[in-house]
Amino acid sequence: MATRAAAERKSAERRQSARGLEHLTIECVSPELDGARFPVKRVVGDVVEVGADIFKEGHDLLAARLLFQAPGDVEWRTAPMVFDYDTDRWYAAFTVDRIGRWFFTVEAWTDVFSTWRSGLRKKVDAGQDVNLELLEGSAMIRQAVRRAKFGPARAALLQAAAALEDEAELSQTVRVQRALDDELPALMAEYFAPRDLTRYRRELPITVDRERAAFAAWYEFFPRSSGPAGRHGTFDTAAEQLQRIADLGFDVVYLPPIHPIGRTFRKGKNNTLKPEPDDVGSPWAIGNEHGGHTAIEPALGTIDDFDRFVRRANALGLEVALDYALQCSPDHPWVTEHPDWFNIRPDGSIAYAENPPKKYQDIYPLNFWCDDREGLWNACRDVFLFWISHGVRTFRVDNPHTKAFAFWEWCIDDIQRQHPDVIFFAEAFTRPKRMKGLAKLGFTMSYTYFTWKNTGLELREYVEELAQTPTAEYYRGNFFANTPDILNEYLVHGGRAAFRVRLLLAGTLLPLYGIYSGFELTENVPVRPGSEEYLDSEKYQIKWRDYDAPGNINDDVRRLNQIRHSEPALQLHRNVTFHPSDNEEILFYRKAAQGATAADRARRVLIERLTRLDARVLTASAPRGGPGANGGAPVEPPFPPALLAPSPPTGHDLLIVVNLDPHRPQDTMVSVPIDEMGIGEDEPYVVHDLLTGARYTWRGRRNYVRLDPRTQVGHVLRVER
Amino acid sequence: MATRAAAERKSAERRQSARGLEHLTIECVSPELDGARFPVKRVVGDVVEVGADIFKEGHDLLAARLLFQAPGDVEWRTAPMVFDYDTDRWYAAFTVDRIGRWFFTVEAWTDVFSTWRSGLRKKVDAGQDVNLELLEGSAMIRQAVRRAKFGPARAALLQAAAALEDEAELSQTVRVQRALDDELPALMAEYFAPRDLTRYRRELPITVDRERAAFAAWYEFFPRSSGPAGRHGTFDTAAEQLQRIADLGFDVVYLPPIHPIGRTFRKGKNNTLKPEPDDVGSPWAIGNEHGGHTAIEPALGTIDDFDRFVRRANALGLEVALDYALQCSPDHPWVTEHPDWFNIRPDGSIAYAENPPKKYQDIYPLNFWCDDREGLWNACRDVFLFWISHGVRTFRVDNPHTKAFAFWEWCIDDIQRQHPDVIFFAEAFTRPKRMKGLAKLGFTMSYTYFTWKNTGLELREYVEELAQTPTAEYYRGNFFANTPDILNEYLVHGGRAAFRVRLLLAGTLLPLYGIYSGFELTENVPVRPGSEEYLDSEKYQIKWRDYDAPGNINDDVRRLNQIRHSEPALQLHRNVTFHPSDNEEILFYRKAAQGATAADRARRVLIERLTRLDARVLTASAPRGGPGANGGAPVEPPFPPALLAPSPPTGHDLLIVVNLDPHRPQDTMVSVPIDEMGIGEDEPYVVHDLLTGARYTWRGRRNYVRLDPRTQVGHVLRVER
Repeated sequence: MATRAAAERKSAERRQSARGLEHLTIECVSPELDGARFPVKRVVGDVVEVGADIFKEGHDLLAARLLFQAPGDVEWRTAPMVFDYDTDRWYAAFTVDRIGRWFFTVEAWTDVFSTWRSGLRKKVDAGQDVNLELLEGSAMIRQAVRRAKFGPARAALLQAAAALEDEAELSQTVRVQRALDDELPALMAEYFAPRDLTRYRRELPITVDRERAAFAAWYEFFPRSSGPAGRHGTFDTAAEQLQRIADLGFDVVYLPPIHPIGRTFRKGKNNTLKPEPDDVGSPWAIGNEHGGHTAIEPALGTIDDFDRFVRRANALGLEVALDYALQCSPDHPWVTEHPDWFNIRPDGSIAYAENPPKKYQDIYPLNFWCDDREGLWNACRDVFLFWISHGVRTFRVDNPHTKAFAFWEWCIDDIQRQHPDVIFFAEAFTRPKRMKGLAKLGFTMSYTYFTWKNTGLELREYVEELAQTPTAEYYRGNFFANTPDILNEYLVHGGRAAFRVRLLLAGTLLPLYGIYSGFELTENVPVRPGSEEYLDSEKYQIKWRDYDAPGNINDDVRRLNQIRHSEPALQLHRNVTFHPSDNEEILFYRKAAQGATAADRARRVLIERLTRLDARVLTASAPRGGPGANGGAPVEPPFPPALLAPSPPTGHDLLIVVNLDPHRPQDTMVSVPIDEMGIGEDEPYVVHDLLTGARYTWRGRRNYVRLDPRTQVGHVLRVER
Repeated sequence: MATRAAAERKSAERRQSARGLEHLTIECVSPELDGARFPVKRVVGDVVEVGADIFKEGHDLLAARLLFQAPGDVEWRTAPMVFDYDTDRWYAAFTVDRIGRWFFTVEAWTDVFSTWRSGLRKKVDAGQDVNLELLEGSAMIRQAVRRAKFGPARAALLQAAAALEDEAELSQTVRVQRALDDELPALMAEYFAPRDLTRYRRELPITVDRERAAFAAWYEFFPRSSGPAGRHGTFDTAAEQLQRIADLGFDVVYLPPIHPIGRTFRKGKNNTLKPEPDDVGSPWAIGNEHGGHTAIEPALGTIDDFDRFVRRANALGLEVALDYALQCSPDHPWVTEHPDWFNIRPDGSIAYAENPPKKYQDIYPLNFWCDDREGLWNACRDVFLFWISHGVRTFRVDNPHTKAFAFWEWCIDDIQRQHPDVIFFAEAFTRPKRMKGLAKLGFTMSYTYFTWKNTGLELREYVEELAQTPTAEYYRGNFFANTPDILNEYLVHGGRAAFRVRLLLAGTLLPLYGIYSGFELTENVPVRPGSEEYLDSEKYQIKWRDYDAPGNINDDVRRLNQIRHSEPALQLHRNVTFHPSDNEEILFYRKAAQGATAADRARRVLIERLTRLDARVLTASAPRGGPGANGGAPVEPPFPPALLAPSPPTGHDLLIVVNLDPHRPQDTMVSVPIDEMGIGEDEPYVVHDLLTGARYTWRGRRNYVRLDPRTQVGHVLRVER
């Protein structure tokens, strides 16, 4: 029976801890990810919209407020919540004006005074005697007086209480007038402490990043390929590429690993196991006698050269992203200094990477759960800190899904606490749940399956998942159109038009996209038929290029990046919707102007209605903390209603049409969502092709499009009215 | 800066507490309600299916198990989980064989030994030397030996380790054979302690009720109306009704309040404010000089009479449900004994109920947050305990949404801890979120909007919400077809056929339904046109009835309740699906045999495939607790795979057709979901109308139905093959 009693005790404790006595129910608070286990993501300047279901027994009027805390804040700030009858839900909004980790939660309470006033009014209208009600009101006001210690508020409250009580001198009509006085609610909201203040049981985190975390065009290139033909490039020759890259309109230049490259089992050209003596090896086999993850491959230059490269990039408005590849060549200093950080085999050797029966003898994986876990994790973290101290703020993380997830969560958090501006880009190509898991635990942005989504249906389904499902709260896809590892067969077989199609899709479907150099030269020869590997892959050898070679698509790249910078609609990720096209080879989608989606409009209508209907709800929504069950939280004056209303649409709606067939002209009728765009049934409107400058006058829903891949693969149509 | 540092500390703590170092990720565990804040509901004997997303870095094989705990258990029991590649998810199942509060959670770990074996096999197949691998294997086996202290397991492990190490005497081929030995995995699963055992961070509760909580036909009647004409009924005369009610096939008889009725502001007939001296008043105005919620209205008899009534009902297989209405008449003993439990007005009077400007002076609401909260809550709880001590196990709770939600959560939990067989039925007619909130916090079953859902579309949408959304996890709707408060206009205008239609819908759409007496006599006169109140409502006066009066639908009731008891498909709530009917006046739905839904079939296929494919996954799934991060949990031997497989379908599929038009014959073609039912395109099948005994041979999808409301309002077709 002892065990039975113990079980009952434990069960009771579990129930108790899950419960607590909550006066009001607060649930379904949004945005919330996995029960607040992980933060949702926003960028600085975003308006965060918060929703909550709030109720209690009976018919009392309720009030609620949002509590939010910026990074470094000690106190909560507050904003009033407004109630929407149709959805039976409360809403508020606040602007995240600083990067870092924010928190928010919700409080609610019974608006006792407003409930009383509402009842009083109805009773008076029905001609009932309300003497007792007036005395009840004055009792509430006298409670408020106790907390209004000084000044005109105290005086006004005292006067009101006295008037409501003054049966002898004042008529009931006059006393009722005083009770229904316009100024009382605000005073009572400020000084009357709710007895049932209830706080939502969780504090919900938000990671607020800088803008580049959500909107950027990336350009990947190997600095060692930047030299004059026949020579190993250096940071100085790489710096000479920066003007070209900046002119193409990119925001980020990403360099594959720049560290000393292992010699043992070095890979030869085209991934052969027998290298020539002058083969440069794969930069992802990191470490040799010159150092490891914090050293520079001597052929590229020195750390000073690197610093100069970074300064030059920054001066051109380019940000430098480094590769972070947590694996070691057999020649990495850690192998001798910390063999315990690796897996030791029975013969004392260190285990190389393998995927049986394949062996990767040039790579030693780290053992993230070794006995010196702390030492190893700190060292891995310090690699980031080293490059951060050299001006790097963005890291493309190689294969994070092959390293301990707990390590990433700890490491990203640890770094962002000191450096909230650091961006982590997960290069994980694995099953969706693991890719999402990495994004949840902290990766700022993520590679995607984009290269393998080539039909209209595939693109639509995938982009809708990234933009319109809860995934959009935390997973920022970066649509790389190619990588040194991925040359998709669509590019192999589609020729130059295919590159233009994929560029246009990558750069307009989502605000983050990238290319790996050579894409603009339409390089598309695989190492063998059916392979996604490039022939003479730059991973294993230097590749000297003429970036003005005939057939390049530099003009397309430059124009696209210009448009992305000038059109706010291309800088958002949740504003894409697909619309019917009669020809499945032609994809048709809208990028809505900021604030121009159906949800944006509904929100504006809701908030306008509420602020108009009942200003009291807003002003009454911020009592000083009281002796309620949840204790008193310090409160600032309520925010003005203006803060709640998202700004009206900015920028223009874009309609984008892409011919997915790189071989043949295609035409179709497209169905423009004029209802959502506020355009009348027969109203003409001008669509302005930002790619060519051409203007067309369209009318109504259905309009005709024809695209010949030899001349133009798509339209980016700005809707002008 | 001090505040900034404090904020950072706090923020770090918050992050820390949310994190912990988890070796594996375990998420999206189901069934889970609001992040385990509330229990999901099941009935005894149910197979609970558990799912979880589980992953970690890299390519290792994983293993997982379900931990579950019955009420009173101190230790966890375990069941293996199986992996489904298509959904990238793990599954397990366990049977809840006892009522009360269960808990479950999930553990996962790396199956190091199986990963090693799989690699070994591939290397051997590729002709690689595996000497080091064999030594690694023997090292693992020797680790297991340390925990296998005695007996044949220890001997077998020692022998295997020695063989793997024996380079001198054994050929590598022989050593590999020993390593791939069929018996090793089971031994290693039992004795090799995982180093990364990870437990899901929540323990998920399940409320397991007895069967009546999910399947019952309710009959409501006023015992005071059971007397001979002109006389106040008693428990003895009420007991005489029990045989009739049992013969009609009901499972529960529910009595409106049986307590002394208040005298102050007693309501007269038809809810008038001026009662005649002999008016009996509303039984929901509880309490007078004879007592309150634990007393019996003297006109009905004594507590002994009540006990006898309960015994008589039970002997007939009927359960007695009492009304629990937490409100007091001004004459209730609590008003004088505990005036502090009510709201006191400035003149010292107790506040009556009101909905301004309406006054309900016959009712004093309780103040659930009064200073003597504990005293009041205990007293309210003790009312339940009193009736429980008199054999009552089911309570219909009047207007729970007007009492503190925190009270209900505490009270239901407190009672069910001692009496897990007690059923609480929430009579809340309010907005959906509040109704659902009451179900979440503990109410066993709930009233619904059924009476107002009369068109096919309304019925379909509503039933799909209750049966096919997450709501089905916790909200058990009881489809009362009428109540003393609700006479829907469909009944007013539809005549006898309307009653037959609504009876058939109520009793077949969901497994819980009820009627209030008079329904079977098709009573349908409202107090005034457009009102949902009955004329001469039994709430305010006695109503003597002839239950065999012409026009009764006793035969329909009796037949329906018989079918409900004989057909398992009518005893489930998640197995209803709607199917096309060409005429919107005819509703067509299927109640699938237990285990015959599409989900049931998918599950069987999954589990069959997995158990066939890889028996090792199952046997390897239950290691003894080890020194892993989460400590060792005691483990029972893995359940046999048979437990995982839901039993094959039991009972028959039912196809139900109802003519919603009570006035005119209607006919239609219905579309039978033969694909889901495993019937071939042109295969004939017999449908047996359980209402009439008629048999029809149908073929393929589309079949013809005609229903004339004067004779037959619907079919309940048992599909017989």
